Amino acid sequence: MPKETPGTLLSFRPAIKVIDATLRDGGLVNDFRFSDDFVRALFAANAAAGVDYMELGYKADRDLFDPAKFGAWKFCREQDLARVLGENKTAMKLACMADVGRCNFRRDICKKSDSILNMYRVATYINTIPAAIEMLEYCDKLGYETTVNVMAISKETEKEISLALEMLGKSPAKAIYIVDSYGALYPEEMRILAAKYLEAGDKYGKEIGIHAHNNQNLAFANTIECVAAGVNYLDATVNGMGRGAGNCALELLLGFLKNPKYKLLHILKFLEEGHMQKLRAEGAVWGYDLAYLLTGVFNRHPSSAIRYIKEGRGDITAFWQELLDQE
Amino acid sequence: MPKETPGTLLSFRPAIKVIDATLRDGGLVNDFRFSDDFVRALFAANAAAGVDYMELGYKADRDLFDPAKFGAWKFCREQDLARVLGENKTAMKLACMADVGRCNFRRDICKKSDSILNMYRVATYINTIPAAIEMLEYCDKLGYETTVNVMAISKETEKEISLALEMLGKSPAKAIYIVDSYGALYPEEMRILAAKYLEAGDKYGKEIGIHAHNNQNLAFANTIECVAAGVNYLDATVNGMGRGAGNCALELLLGFLKNPKYKLLHILKFLEEGHMQKLRAEGAVWGYDLAYLLTGVFNRHPSSAIRYIKEGRGDITAFWQELLDQE
Repeated sequence: MPKETPGTLLSFRPAIKVIDATLRDGGLVNDFRFSDDFVRALFAANAAAGVDYMELGYKADRDLFDPAKFGAWKFCREQDLARVLGENKTAMKLACMADVGRCNFRRDICKKSDSILNMYRVATYINTIPAAIEMLEYCDKLGYETTVNVMAISKETEKEISLALEMLGKSPAKAIYIVDSYGALYPEEMRILAAKYLEAGDKYGKEIGIHAHNNQNLAFANTIECVAAGVNYLDATVNGMGRGAGNCALELLLGFLKNPKYKLLHILKFLEEGHMQKLRAEGAVWGYDLAYLLTGVFNRHPSSAIRYIKEGRGDITAFWQELLDQE
Repeated sequence: MPKETPGTLLSFRPAIKVIDATLRDGGLVNDFRFSDDFVRALFAANAAAGVDYMELGYKADRDLFDPAKFGAWKFCREQDLARVLGENKTAMKLACMADVGRCNFRRDICKKSDSILNMYRVATYINTIPAAIEMLEYCDKLGYETTVNVMAISKETEKEISLALEMLGKSPAKAIYIVDSYGALYPEEMRILAAKYLEAGDKYGKEIGIHAHNNQNLAFANTIECVAAGVNYLDATVNGMGRGAGNCALELLLGFLKNPKYKLLHILKFLEEGHMQKLRAEGAVWGYDLAYLLTGVFNRHPSSAIRYIKEGRGDITAFWQELLDQE
């Protein structure tokens, strides 16, 4: 892989790619019930803003998840994508996430020439990497770009991460993602991890990506720390919409990046039009909150905090005690 | 000054001092109208949480500011402090901010032995440093600890900052603060500034402090970046309460620090009791918002964003244009 200089605060790296994951990670908080209008408006805003990839949702197995209980973006069937987006005549590429074990990829993923999609992003835990590699190879053979997201690494040992990077280095994935599923990592830990991933990236010719969560209000900070280290694939979502405390906000990220192709104004326009407020009015809840701070500090899955907030609890000291009792 | 090792993510530095500035920076959003009950509850929570200094407000000149228009914490008269807090029997020290040009220090600051206060924090712009030094020397002679906050440095040149550090190095201030008044700085810039301040601190035997603002949602991240660099005096406020986008949240900071004397639980308890919600219900508004993101990106004073939010505007693209027109 030809090396680029990391850039400075006044220069920029053309190799940087911004991936808008609003429909995918955001879909986790509204069961993927985005209106066609929302999706079209977001598509237009992202394309105008210079976003490189827009992730449309998951390729979930309809035998495992009841289609009556979710919006179309949980499944990303080609007919739904075509109905809402038609042909993609923009420079922006389209992506879809496929979860190991939750996707019938041999049945549901068609060849690239029959699809509006450009890229599959395979999400895996560290113990399912062989299955992830099988999916990456399958998608690659069908003609798609692929990336791989190794989730929940704040729970893994350095040795396990090294082994994972060695295995994924030999896969067709063009980028390997650092994923802080629990929002537990601090910027100085991010720098150490980024260096480790980038070393493997150099060895195997892979790009490195970052997918951050905002449990300790560090999603944006951790993302730009990774940029400073040389990470090029950057996930973000509008208003940080995503599971629990949410993700790195796209508007913050585009405000930071100096690449002239990125135009924050189009995301501001999208926000001004009230699309995100409408989702909140419909009941979608996300964003930094005390309960997420605690699951972040304790390096735990945010599920208990999500439940705490759903139940409208305010007894944060009791919640702290519950987390402590599980140590 | 004896050097400490900077510590790691598992160790800690005893030299770290946490300063709760809720009444002072937070007072800027409610005209310092905190009830006696609020102040007593916050005092008790801070003391129990191991906070090192609690800043009670400003020592503002009553000839310049109409006492009818502000709560007592704008002026911090000894009689008010004594009435509300009595004697300070805790290990926590008490501080007050004195602004260059807005404080009649020769008239209003009594000698240390007649005061409940331990420390004066002198706030200055770079062009009023001689006046700040006069105040620092005055307070020092009266027996107080002193620190100095050089505000709005994101607008200053490296050369001016160097000169400022040389001058303040010879003052009695025990700590010199990095103050990102406009919330414009990114963590990688913070690291560069922290190194510069720490170098001057080494030369003159001063501690370095950080007072961050949250315009780009980086107040906590910038604060802990400074910790990693060796900065020891850390300002924070409960819920990040402070002017505009607010400050580094005390609860995030205590969740991060490994010093065993800090007990986050007591701040959680204070939050659980609803004190901050009450302030919001009474009309106090603060916290990260799109308009602050933009003044942060443009490296501007947040006043126009504060006005934007006060007026309930939602036309963020017009606001962007206004900022652009002023470049």
